Amino acid sequence: MNLWEQTDRPFDERVEALLDEMTTAEMAGQLGAFWPRPKERKEGGGEVAPMESVMSSGEFEEVSRDGLGHLTRVFGSAPVAVEEGVANLARFQAQVVERSRFGIPAIAHEECLTGLTAWGATVYPAAIAWGATFDPDLIEEMAAAIGQDMAALGVHQGLSPLLDVVRDYRWGRVEETIGEDPLLVGSLGAAYVRGLQGAGVDATLKHFVGYSASRAGRNHAPVSIGTRELEDILLPPFEMAVREGGVASVMNSYSDLDGVPAAASRHLLTHVLRERWGFTGTVVSDYWSVSFLQGMHRVVDDLTEAGALSLRAGMDVELPETGAFGHLAEAIDRGLLSEAELREATRRVLLQKAKLGLLDPDWDPQTAGAATDLDSPRNRDIARRVAEESIVLLANEQELLPLRAEKIALVGPIASDALTFLGCYSFPNHVMQRHPDMSTGLDMVTLADAVRAEFADAEVAVEAGVPILDPDTSGIAAAVEAAKAAEVAIVAVGDKAGMFGHGTSGEGCDVVDLRLPGAQAALVEAVLDTGTPTVLLVVSGRPYSLGAFADRAAAIVQAFMPGAEGGMAMAGVLSGRVNPVGKLPVGIPDHPGGQPGTYIAPPLGWFSDGVSNLDPRPLFPFGHGRSYTTYEVSGLELSADEVTTDGELTVTATVTNTGDRAGAEVVQVYLSDLTGQVVRPLKQLVAYVKVPLEAGESRTVTFGLHTDLMSFTGLDKTRIVEPGAMEVKVGSSSEDLPLAGGFTLTGDVREVAEGRVLLPTISLGSLG
Amino acid sequence: MNLWEQTDRPFDERVEALLDEMTTAEMAGQLGAFWPRPKERKEGGGEVAPMESVMSSGEFEEVSRDGLGHLTRVFGSAPVAVEEGVANLARFQAQVVERSRFGIPAIAHEECLTGLTAWGATVYPAAIAWGATFDPDLIEEMAAAIGQDMAALGVHQGLSPLLDVVRDYRWGRVEETIGEDPLLVGSLGAAYVRGLQGAGVDATLKHFVGYSASRAGRNHAPVSIGTRELEDILLPPFEMAVREGGVASVMNSYSDLDGVPAAASRHLLTHVLRERWGFTGTVVSDYWSVSFLQGMHRVVDDLTEAGALSLRAGMDVELPETGAFGHLAEAIDRGLLSEAELREATRRVLLQKAKLGLLDPDWDPQTAGAATDLDSPRNRDIARRVAEESIVLLANEQELLPLRAEKIALVGPIASDALTFLGCYSFPNHVMQRHPDMSTGLDMVTLADAVRAEFADAEVAVEAGVPILDPDTSGIAAAVEAAKAAEVAIVAVGDKAGMFGHGTSGEGCDVVDLRLPGAQAALVEAVLDTGTPTVLLVVSGRPYSLGAFADRAAAIVQAFMPGAEGGMAMAGVLSGRVNPVGKLPVGIPDHPGGQPGTYIAPPLGWFSDGVSNLDPRPLFPFGHGRSYTTYEVSGLELSADEVTTDGELTVTATVTNTGDRAGAEVVQVYLSDLTGQVVRPLKQLVAYVKVPLEAGESRTVTFGLHTDLMSFTGLDKTRIVEPGAMEVKVGSSSEDLPLAGGFTLTGDVREVAEGRVLLPTISLGSLG
Repeated sequence: MNLWEQTDRPFDERVEALLDEMTTAEMAGQLGAFWPRPKERKEGGGEVAPMESVMSSGEFEEVSRDGLGHLTRVFGSAPVAVEEGVANLARFQAQVVERSRFGIPAIAHEECLTGLTAWGATVYPAAIAWGATFDPDLIEEMAAAIGQDMAALGVHQGLSPLLDVVRDYRWGRVEETIGEDPLLVGSLGAAYVRGLQGAGVDATLKHFVGYSASRAGRNHAPVSIGTRELEDILLPPFEMAVREGGVASVMNSYSDLDGVPAAASRHLLTHVLRERWGFTGTVVSDYWSVSFLQGMHRVVDDLTEAGALSLRAGMDVELPETGAFGHLAEAIDRGLLSEAELREATRRVLLQKAKLGLLDPDWDPQTAGAATDLDSPRNRDIARRVAEESIVLLANEQELLPLRAEKIALVGPIASDALTFLGCYSFPNHVMQRHPDMSTGLDMVTLADAVRAEFADAEVAVEAGVPILDPDTSGIAAAVEAAKAAEVAIVAVGDKAGMFGHGTSGEGCDVVDLRLPGAQAALVEAVLDTGTPTVLLVVSGRPYSLGAFADRAAAIVQAFMPGAEGGMAMAGVLSGRVNPVGKLPVGIPDHPGGQPGTYIAPPLGWFSDGVSNLDPRPLFPFGHGRSYTTYEVSGLELSADEVTTDGELTVTATVTNTGDRAGAEVVQVYLSDLTGQVVRPLKQLVAYVKVPLEAGESRTVTFGLHTDLMSFTGLDKTRIVEPGAMEVKVGSSSEDLPLAGGFTLTGDVREVAEGRVLLPTISLGSLG
Repeated sequence: MNLWEQTDRPFDERVEALLDEMTTAEMAGQLGAFWPRPKERKEGGGEVAPMESVMSSGEFEEVSRDGLGHLTRVFGSAPVAVEEGVANLARFQAQVVERSRFGIPAIAHEECLTGLTAWGATVYPAAIAWGATFDPDLIEEMAAAIGQDMAALGVHQGLSPLLDVVRDYRWGRVEETIGEDPLLVGSLGAAYVRGLQGAGVDATLKHFVGYSASRAGRNHAPVSIGTRELEDILLPPFEMAVREGGVASVMNSYSDLDGVPAAASRHLLTHVLRERWGFTGTVVSDYWSVSFLQGMHRVVDDLTEAGALSLRAGMDVELPETGAFGHLAEAIDRGLLSEAELREATRRVLLQKAKLGLLDPDWDPQTAGAATDLDSPRNRDIARRVAEESIVLLANEQELLPLRAEKIALVGPIASDALTFLGCYSFPNHVMQRHPDMSTGLDMVTLADAVRAEFADAEVAVEAGVPILDPDTSGIAAAVEAAKAAEVAIVAVGDKAGMFGHGTSGEGCDVVDLRLPGAQAALVEAVLDTGTPTVLLVVSGRPYSLGAFADRAAAIVQAFMPGAEGGMAMAGVLSGRVNPVGKLPVGIPDHPGGQPGTYIAPPLGWFSDGVSNLDPRPLFPFGHGRSYTTYEVSGLELSADEVTTDGELTVTATVTNTGDRAGAEVVQVYLSDLTGQVVRPLKQLVAYVKVPLEAGESRTVTFGLHTDLMSFTGLDKTRIVEPGAMEVKVGSSSEDLPLAGGFTLTGDVREVAEGRVLLPTISLGSLG
């Protein structure tokens, strides 16, 4: 047996042994990919399964002649039954293995942001909804379920999660992010990574880095960014997922940062990621982004230069198909790349394969995957819980909720379209939009049916009123009539996800302002004008400006694309069967400009007194969310008045459910650095914990805040902890912080070493 | 006689001699200012002249006890007749001189962006209108007239021009800028500086630097900016005005750049400005920005630290009044500042005073200024010419213009409100808004009166339709009736400038999107719906999105706040008496998002194919403007196919007036760097010239483009010229470039030295 096949040997040793035997072409083959995309349509609609057309095209044989790095989305590209997908994958892998002189299979990767992007698989809530749960354990559980399904099929890598920190709500991909706070994004992102990888599937962080800060929120637009915004806002979630989550793979951002494309940035892909953070996995390219270096960024003259530049920067694998990396041998001939550099990237890919068991002698394409129930009751139960925990009760001043009514009008385009519950990267929205004549393969309860089921004794009139996007207002009159005839109206408005203009949210679905899409604002106005007490229910992927309606709606509920189980979850919140616990991972804007798009702002980023007529502050702030019970936080104690710059502060508080039903409160800790050598935000989240509480119950919560958590990028661009006055605030949202305490950082300015503490420690005291 | 009074000695020597005699308090006094703002209102309206209240308050005596650096806006703060202003200034100066042990008067500074900001002074077009002239000679002539009036009054320094390069059209101060192109801003800015300073008044560049790139275009908001956007877009106009214009003073930006406030940035105020560019003048603070270091930016704990930090960064004078700089002596006591540093700033202020003649023994407060006609026919003539040259004919597909009609409907809120012609920093809009019961002191012809005069034989019906900002649509019906009854409708919509919410454009008047303010879009729609051929006339300080109307308007004219003579200038364009020659200094957006807000964009900043549903490209591009005649550019010749990276390329073309009336065409030269080591814009203006041409006339134009003009900030952040393929395009707008030629930069990458060539050479051939 070859040394590299010996499973009792260390991975490194096996990989080096294998590399020693590989030719240049064989190494380059490991860095490429093949995407078996359907090329023809079936008679009567639908597309052929990938296999039939692509197997015979010769392309696959050509690209995998010397081995193949990745197989791209065998399940995720066309609507095929799971058995057919498994068979397809096995046949592709068999050929890859057969053609490889060493019998090395490809890494099969898929999209999996809201669950495996495959026909008929459970669709979980969108990532922005995970953010609203503030619940890492739940997200880890969800990711574990996703990973188990993928592993069962023989899939090795999932292209999730997104750790882009929201900077502009107009960006279409806000729904794919976890929110606008680095700690929230990083802690939930690391939880997702642990869940997926614990099930045996490698996670992929994307998009490293800067993508969310594109000019005007337009997809792929240039990113003009300073060092501090990059280091203090955008990089930390990635560092958390690398160092706390142990992620196996990272994908670059499409965009350029101050003129340097991420795909060509050695600073980002090598210095930050590997040298500073100790990342040892693979960097894979966002689809076609290596060739974009030529055509879009114009930093090279041809694909050979593109491949060499990107690989030398730190890129290991070109996705979704071999393009620029097909010229790597030529790049070596032209002196653009060294054999050693090619070998280094190959080493990382083979190491990933070794850890996945793909170099083991018993690996067999026929047994590597098996059909499994992709929409199991277990999946559905998790999807339901994530949905329920992610719904945010924004306002209920008139206590109209929980609803008690015998005649309900449910109006709005969300009512009868359950696809509005799903994110852009769900299979129904991502792929099935190209197959409108086929079933989505997913059973879902519409909001209308859910409300009818939830309020079984009530009469429920349903009217769409307006479409999601078209400015057709002809249905408003019927909606108004329904609202007038009812005791209470629910007006359900928001987004439908899609790709590149096929939706109002999702990849390439950017907006010019934060008004509700289409004529939905007119519908809301018309329903509010009836005088019937109205619940405004927004089901969306991005926050929309609600300032025009807030005073007149009796209650406002925000659901962030709650997934396949979203209908009953939302109905449960409306009825009170579910006590809302969600908290906003993004602010809800007041006016349609909706900037700054982050609560992490210095005074001039937050207040406009005397400088601008525009108030950028949100209608509902980051971290906000109400409940059908009430909570109180009290008894703030800090461990010390003075903490040395290399010390730790302990923060203790008590949270009490002061109402009459069970719930859960997210206790949030914000830090304010009152004076800095550079401009510092007014506050920033440094710790949070979700505490379940029965009626009347209390718990103490203790947070350990290492001073590393108080560090920032100083004047000379190194990370420092600076002595001076600080303030800790504790409460239930970024603007509801009844507890405050000051302390002083003492001692010298401390430069923070790599390997810094990234997360607070949290402990819950006993029930009181 | 003291050495420092000896006018035959070099300025440096006189200043050093004076410094040797000064105490710490006397030096600090030279760095402060006093603003005699009126404190009480007169019976029956209006405010008292500054003198009576402030002379007796003791504040003035206190702050000028040891001498005084500046007197702030004696003319510009309240409506006083010119004679009264002159007398006030003389009395203040007499006291300053009397209290100073050396008898040194203060520098009297005023605002002067659209002319001296004083009661009754001519208001010239807004700076964004200068941009539309593309005519440095005319702007220099205008600035000379402004400077002559100021010098006559005894004013020494004007706080103009703004050289902020537009990055976001939503920003309220777009009207105060010269446009979105660094060359246009810098060349016209330098012309303004030459004009003002040639008349003996020191110009002040503002706002150094970054202000225009604030987050979401909100005034004072943080600026997250990368090195290349700063170096290649925002800094060059300042460098041009320093090195080509020889400017005497520079004012900082309020905002922070990536966390470092400009007022505290030694990198910007000292390294870039003085060490790199050789600037020897004074840096003055934007009003209160030194104390903002404490209260807004929170980078210091008290005003003493604020003053020391800012002065050490390179600030010389605190405006508008002594605040933090009142603590400089204490800062020295606390070890925050050295005597040498204080002396260095004082040296620069005294050098400015010496050059202004303020240290001369014959300087006499009683004779230093005299009343002059601030609204002379000469001024009005220049104002008219700038207005006429700045009006841009955007579209005239149906050749409705020049108008020939017997029944004209003039509708829109611009029609009867001549204050809409004036920028925010004009005296009527800046100061008189606080005195609504007093005369503005300025005679102006409204657009309605101008159209009646211009079309003396026609019947002109005038209806406002809607207000500028209030959403009151009750007047639309009357406007529609007027339009229906007319042969042709002119719908005149746009802005009214003001401060902090008292207007739709101007300082602090930011917007959330680029829709026409208030209900003006509804008015335009209603008039277009009548079917009466309609001229859309936009009179505004920022570009508004016109995509919704463009197909239906018979003609579109853009005027950028054309000043006191704007009414007749616009009427003249409508009638054809004036042949339009203006070109857009900013793009006119298609949709209300209107981003990117600059034509200087790489492919992903400009094209959205396959990446976003939003097309950021404008409806009318930068540099666009039509005429009542036609022009052709032809015969492009490049001096060489290959140019070494330290060489020069000569570009020659011929421009011909192919129509039947006289006009002037702006020949524009754009450069494309086809591949760069960093991402490069698709094109950028490198030369332009306005060529007057009689009907049928031709001229050749020759541009000398030193390769320094092809330099950019490379990967290692130094400025370089890189070998490779380039393209030159010549034409009449950034998107109408019929002539193109390629050349190759050869040789090595060249690092560009300080003192680089900033402007092209231009020569006009003989008439053909």
